[in-house]
Amino acid sequence: MTKLNVAVIGCGSWGKNHARVYNNIKGANLLAVADLNKSVAEEIGKRYNIDWYTNSDEVLDRSDIEAVSLCTPTLTHADIALTAIKTGKHILVEKPMTNTLEEAKNLIKAADVQGVYLAVGFVERFNPAVNETIKKISNGEIGDVILAHARRVSRRPLRIGDVGVIKDLAIHDIDIVNQLFDVEAEEVFATAGNIAHQFEDYANIVIRFKDNRNAFIETNWLTPRKVRRLIVTGTKGLINVEYITQEITIENDEGIYQPFIESREPLLLELEGFVNSILHDEQPQPTGLDGLKALNICEAALQSAKTGLPVRIQGD
Amino acid sequence: MTKLNVAVIGCGSWGKNHARVYNNIKGANLLAVADLNKSVAEEIGKRYNIDWYTNSDEVLDRSDIEAVSLCTPTLTHADIALTAIKTGKHILVEKPMTNTLEEAKNLIKAADVQGVYLAVGFVERFNPAVNETIKKISNGEIGDVILAHARRVSRRPLRIGDVGVIKDLAIHDIDIVNQLFDVEAEEVFATAGNIAHQFEDYANIVIRFKDNRNAFIETNWLTPRKVRRLIVTGTKGLINVEYITQEITIENDEGIYQPFIESREPLLLELEGFVNSILHDEQPQPTGLDGLKALNICEAALQSAKTGLPVRIQGD
Amino acid sequence: MTKLNVAVIGCGSWGKNHARVYNNIKGANLLAVADLNKSVAEEIGKRYNIDWYTNSDEVLDRSDIEAVSLCTPTLTHADIALTAIKTGKHILVEKPMTNTLEEAKNLIKAADVQGVYLAVGFVERFNPAVNETIKKISNGEIGDVILAHARRVSRRPLRIGDVGVIKDLAIHDIDIVNQLFDVEAEEVFATAGNIAHQFEDYANIVIRFKDNRNAFIETNWLTPRKVRRLIVTGTKGLINVEYITQEITIENDEGIYQPFIESREPLLLELEGFVNSILHDEQPQPTGLDGLKALNICEAALQSAKTGLPVRIQGD
Amino acid sequence: MTKLNVAVIGCGSWGKNHARVYNNIKGANLLAVADLNKSVAEEIGKRYNIDWYTNSDEVLDRSDIEAVSLCTPTLTHADIALTAIKTGKHILVEKPMTNTLEEAKNLIKAADVQGVYLAVGFVERFNPAVNETIKKISNGEIGDVILAHARRVSRRPLRIGDVGVIKDLAIHDIDIVNQLFDVEAEEVFATAGNIAHQFEDYANIVIRFKDNRNAFIETNWLTPRKVRRLIVTGTKGLINVEYITQEITIENDEGIYQPFIESREPLLLELEGFVNSILHDEQPQPTGLDGLKALNICEAALQSAKTGLPVRIQGD
Repeated sequence: MTKLNVAVIGCGSWGKNHARVYNNIKGANLLAVADLNKSVAEEIGKRYNIDWYTNSDEVLDRSDIEAVSLCTPTLTHADIALTAIKTGKHILVEKPMTNTLEEAKNLIKAADVQGVYLAVGFVERFNPAVNETIKKISNGEIGDVILAHARRVSRRPLRIGDVGVIKDLAIHDIDIVNQLFDVEAEEVFATAGNIAHQFEDYANIVIRFKDNRNAFIETNWLTPRKVRRLIVTGTKGLINVEYITQEITIENDEGIYQPFIESREPLLLELEGFVNSILHDEQPQPTGLDGLKALNICEAALQSAKTGLPVRIQGD
Repeated sequence: MTKLNVAVIGCGSWGKNHARVYNNIKGANLLAVADLNKSVAEEIGKRYNIDWYTNSDEVLDRSDIEAVSLCTPTLTHADIALTAIKTGKHILVEKPMTNTLEEAKNLIKAADVQGVYLAVGFVERFNPAVNETIKKISNGEIGDVILAHARRVSRRPLRIGDVGVIKDLAIHDIDIVNQLFDVEAEEVFATAGNIAHQFEDYANIVIRFKDNRNAFIETNWLTPRKVRRLIVTGTKGLINVEYITQEITIENDEGIYQPFIESREPLLLELEGFVNSILHDEQPQPTGLDGLKALNICEAALQSAKTGLPVRIQGD
Repeated sequence: MTKLNVAVIGCGSWGKNHARVYNNIKGANLLAVADLNKSVAEEIGKRYNIDWYTNSDEVLDRSDIEAVSLCTPTLTHADIALTAIKTGKHILVEKPMTNTLEEAKNLIKAADVQGVYLAVGFVERFNPAVNETIKKISNGEIGDVILAHARRVSRRPLRIGDVGVIKDLAIHDIDIVNQLFDVEAEEVFATAGNIAHQFEDYANIVIRFKDNRNAFIETNWLTPRKVRRLIVTGTKGLINVEYITQEITIENDEGIYQPFIESREPLLLELEGFVNSILHDEQPQPTGLDGLKALNICEAALQSAKTGLPVRIQGD
Repeated sequence: MTKLNVAVIGCGSWGKNHARVYNNIKGANLLAVADLNKSVAEEIGKRYNIDWYTNSDEVLDRSDIEAVSLCTPTLTHADIALTAIKTGKHILVEKPMTNTLEEAKNLIKAADVQGVYLAVGFVERFNPAVNETIKKISNGEIGDVILAHARRVSRRPLRIGDVGVIKDLAIHDIDIVNQLFDVEAEEVFATAGNIAHQFEDYANIVIRFKDNRNAFIETNWLTPRKVRRLIVTGTKGLINVEYITQEITIENDEGIYQPFIESREPLLLELEGFVNSILHDEQPQPTGLDGLKALNICEAALQSAKTGLPVRIQGD
């Protein structure tokens, strides 16, 4: 069996999970990890008995490594990803793909020129509850989708990264509603504020899609108990998705139904998909374009929150 | 014991409840009801062994009647209420107070000139769960209130009245958040649409209050199962209010607490308050001004949904 | 339309409900109430503009009254019911039917001799959730019924009647499981104790039915929050019944389903059934025999709790 | 730091977890595993880069191994554990400790004679929700404990072991209620049956403790959805324990409270406790005597189910 030689760049709390999961995927050979923090890099390297570095270039210089997961802070994504692409690595960039739209477009172009695959790490796409939801909607179980309503709230994290709650949390639901509605987002209105952080730590985001379909996303770092919930309302019924417990309930005029869904780790499914797609020379999902679209809406939300006006979404 | 002589004008599904409740209030003498539909008026009249009319003027002409509940369709509120006020009746007008802001202002002025009390029927104010919530917030249990999020959804009613879902349902939560935030609403943005009705049957409403406090209200007539929920997020915790079951839960960093609240019928508390206030020659709550403020936000939401732009709230 | 002339004997908290409900039933003329407490009898009499007495004999002496509800304390059931039967009244006796098996058998025999109908007030039989459960089981949705598990717990009532928690609360579930299993109860084992009352205030009751089907009932007056729950386990699935909210959920290997059930007041359905059966000259349900069977199991449980040994159920 | 050299005997689904967890415990050196199934033993051995055997004797013959976890089928426990003890190994025996009371007593005596520590694997003892419950009860939050009610039900496992549902599932709750009540169990009554298995696959167990405290345990392999729940009722309130989600709620007359509990893997806490106790030359918990007491009640339940009579618990 052919295996894909992979490495993980950035071994913070989420990068650690990439390493752990690659180590369990049959189609992947985890060869190396890198982290600026030497003790972190060393610990992970030793745990899996693989090479470890404190500089991403040392990973990217290795010709035996075919693909990388990029899990560093957002502001560094553009540079490292561009280097990775130029050295011919396939790359999975964690969300948010980059800090700016310009950077995101550059990455897409570079990957295209270089002939490598670029994927973006929207892990909720691989949540079994989301897949079941998409299947139910496709089967017409709730009629035409009119409204989506996401609630993604948590207590303030001890360590905030280099982006606010919109690019950190809301972006997940933005990508999911982009999939659920089969039409383009046209306009974004948002309010946001910050109570305890440098970046916005709460936001209410209204997204107007074509045909007056609407999404609303409430996100914050103010809420004691973590909630990750999506309610999709159609003309014939409603689906409630609990991302954390991977449960869905479907309501229609007769009753409420909760199908049993086999629980799976979304990151495992995501990385399996990434590895297998590349082994089969196919584009892995979600694509760079998906990452760009979600980022575009985040930027529109941030701008709307600043100006107090709705912002039109420009096509790419 | 002095009793207040009252009558109910409009005996549709909700007016019937006014009649039933007045009949159980010690301080009230229910003397008459009126409804355009003769069989309805007759049935209620006979049930309580009181006079019944098919014309509101016949009620208002009676000098022994001191106060009336007005439960007719919204479009008729302004005319009938004005007549009632001019005949010197104290009046409780069901929500929405009137169909237009102009009409609402006229009623307030007329009541003032005439020296009668004008109240507006926001029944959720009298929900024991709301009162407990306000008490907890006043005690500082969730810190400073930053966000309010209401979800008020139902299946399409068989018979839609003469207003859309914003003035019919969302107005309840608009009045409640006006109470919860001790600052003025400044701006409203809304999206809305209609799937199965003449008026809007779904809406997402964002209300920006002073100091960047935010409320979001989702309301529709598309959802199979009735939900009436309010989530208030503060700097130290969160309160979830279930209007229907009259339950609240308070979350903070230590846990979740549900105090047992004695269940009471909100309409009973509302009408007791109305009757007792008048018997004590005090202004009953909510006032005409409360009704006007909520209507003002409804109108702003409707205008925003039409223009696609946020609408500033004008002071009165 | 022919109406049945009825009266209510005993106007405590539950008897009051009989009066209120009869007053709303089209087929019934509520003619009189009786209660030893003059002010109670008077209040109810005046509320419905009917005759009121402080002595049950005055009701039973009236030849125009055709049927009575008997809602007095348990210890008085046998005497008053016997008098009612002898004066030719059809009778609905509240649960528990009588205090002793002997008394119950006497009533059945007397009603038979006298040619009047005797019914017993197991109100949970008329709970829409129970009817839906029986329908689902009949449709084979959970396969063969193997186990039933009831939990009926509350905080200690302010005023305890003249029986313990087994005859007061558990008897409801005993009657329901007698219906659910289509086989006879064979043996009962129970533990019980009393913490704060003269009679037992907690009990665990195991009932062994034919073919080794089993029921377990936990009941007490120790629990702060009222729960009335029944879980029926079959070879193919499970039904959970919430008596209070009138909701059921059905679990099988594919998922969990909650059908929407129209909420109805069980006492209304019970008294409508009683009145209509008599108007049609048919035996109302539940019968005296049902009452006897349930009482038989209660007595066995009490005896088992006392002796520490299982008690065989004797056929009638 | 001194480490304890450990091995795992039996690498079925649960033994695998012992190996994984020991590998993560700082105080333990996992040196070897054994399983009759060569491919299983080899897979685990290679995963952790340790020695693997197909015969437990090869593990027990190694003088460098100081302690073992015994995770083989129940019927083999007595023989292997006795050999382990005789070779001077400290031993953690999975539940049920042995198949017979005689065997259990022999192990306790042998460990005592040999001067090694014997522990039994009641993993629920280490569930953070159970510890929090015990703390709340000790603080008097629910008054005197009167009743315990456990529900431990699942769908039939694909592969049933060599014991029925009483020794496999109910034994967990038996051990927990033995801890919760600070008095001895005196008598057991049980009903049981088997629908789809050789051993009993459902059981209702009533345990009478001193001072008429009562426990009831319902367990089966008939229920589609897994439930592991314990309800403890005291004179002042109630605690509901959800073992799976590690959540507890406390009800009293004022309300319901759910303290947030940090989620931990119970097996990790169990094995850490085992390892650290031995490193400190202290008796690890739960002891062999705890295992014997629980087994004693299981045997009494099985006997009661067979004879139809309650069975007295003999002191040891």
